[in-house]
Amino acid sequence: MTPTMNNFLLDEGAYAGEAGHPIPDIVIRRLPIYLRTLTALLEQNVTSINSEELAESIGVTAAQIRRDLSYFGKFGKQGKGYDVRFLTDEIHHILQLDRPWNCALVGYGNLGQAIVHYGGFVPTSFNISAIFDRNETIGQLVNGLIVKEVDDITDTVAELGIKIGIIAVPPSSVQAIADRLIAGGVTAILNYAPIVIKAPAHVMVREVDPIGAMQSMTYYLDDRG
Amino acid sequence: MTPTMNNFLLDEGAYAGEAGHPIPDIVIRRLPIYLRTLTALLEQNVTSINSEELAESIGVTAAQIRRDLSYFGKFGKQGKGYDVRFLTDEIHHILQLDRPWNCALVGYGNLGQAIVHYGGFVPTSFNISAIFDRNETIGQLVNGLIVKEVDDITDTVAELGIKIGIIAVPPSSVQAIADRLIAGGVTAILNYAPIVIKAPAHVMVREVDPIGAMQSMTYYLDDRG
Repeated sequence: MTPTMNNFLLDEGAYAGEAGHPIPDIVIRRLPIYLRTLTALLEQNVTSINSEELAESIGVTAAQIRRDLSYFGKFGKQGKGYDVRFLTDEIHHILQLDRPWNCALVGYGNLGQAIVHYGGFVPTSFNISAIFDRNETIGQLVNGLIVKEVDDITDTVAELGIKIGIIAVPPSSVQAIADRLIAGGVTAILNYAPIVIKAPAHVMVREVDPIGAMQSMTYYLDDRG
Repeated sequence: MTPTMNNFLLDEGAYAGEAGHPIPDIVIRRLPIYLRTLTALLEQNVTSINSEELAESIGVTAAQIRRDLSYFGKFGKQGKGYDVRFLTDEIHHILQLDRPWNCALVGYGNLGQAIVHYGGFVPTSFNISAIFDRNETIGQLVNGLIVKEVDDITDTVAELGIKIGIIAVPPSSVQAIADRLIAGGVTAILNYAPIVIKAPAHVMVREVDPIGAMQSMTYYLDDRG
C-alpha cells in the first residue's frame, strides 16, 4: 500500500511493517518538528539544552524525544542534555537534508505562485528546479526558470533526475499529473489537492489537507458561539 | 497544553486526556478522511458498501473504522455493511459540519488569494466571511467582502462571532495576528506559516506544514537518484 497521509493516521507502526522499514513512519514525521524547534534555538544562540527544556519547547515529552532518537543512536550526554548544533546536524543527516533536493512544481496559479514565493522553502534543502503549467503562463520566466508545458513533465523530470514533485493543480488533473511525474522517476509527491492519488508502492505521497484540518477542529468548537 | 499539530503527532490519547475529551484526537483527525472517501462514493452513486470495501477505499483496515466509529455509536448493520448517506450525515453531525462556520482569513498575498479561490472550501461548511491584510489590498473587494486592515481583526471577529481563523501572513507577523484573533473570540486557528503559535489552552491550532511533509519524505528517498 502506498504510504499516503492516510497511513500516517494509522496506528504507529502500520507503515513501518508494510514497507520493511524498521522505524515507524510517525517517528520520521516527528523529526522535522524537532528540527524546526532546534533551528529556532540556534537562531537564538542556544547551543546546549537539557531534555526537559527541549521537550517543553517542542511540545512533547522528554521520554518521547528519547524514544524517537533512540532509533538512530545516542544523542544526549547523561546529565548534560543535548548539543543543539550536533543534534540539528544529525537529524539533517538522518532525513537526508544535508544535500540539496531538486523539486518539480506542477501548477503555477495562485497556489503555485504562493509556493514559489513561500519563504519556508528557502532556508531548506528544497530547490524548485522545474515549473510546469498549462495555457498562458507557459514560457514565462520565474526565478530564472521558464515555465514548461505539462506535456514535458516526464521527459524533463527524467532528464534532471528530479525525485520530488509538488502538485498544485485543480483536483480533476491531479492523477494525470502524478502519473507523468512518476513515469519520469519521481518517488515522492507533495499533493495540495483534496484528492487521494493512486500511486505504486515505491512512491510516497503526502497530502497538504487544510480542509481536513479545519473539519477536525470544528468537533471541538463550542457551537453556541 | 495547546493541541497543536505537535500533539497530533504524539501517541494516541495524548491530547484526549489533557483536554478531558473521552475520544482521542487522532480518531477525530481520521473522520475527515473517512468523509472524503464517503463523499466520493456518493458522487459515484454508491449508496451501500461493506466494511472491507470501505476500508480498502479509505486505505485503513476495517477494524480501524469499526473501532473509530464505536466511539460514537453503531453505524453498520451486521452483514449489511454501511449505508453511505447515513454514515456521511452522521460524521458531518459528529464533526459539527451540518451547520455553516464563518471564518476569518488574515493575509491576502499569493497564499491568501489561493485560499480564497481554492475549490476545496466551496462544497464544505466553511465560509470566509472576513479578510484582513496590510497595505495595498486594504479596501479591495473580494467575493463581496472588503479587505479590512489587521487593526480591525479583534473587533470584527467579535462582532461577527467568528470562531475560526486562517492565518496566511509572513512568519514574523503570525503570533501578533493569532493574539488578535484570539482576543476577538477565535478558538480554532489554521496556521499556514512555519511557526509554532503560542495560544491559551482553550484555543486549538492546526498547522499546514508542507516543509515538514517534504522533510519527512526525503528520509525514504534513494539518494543515488
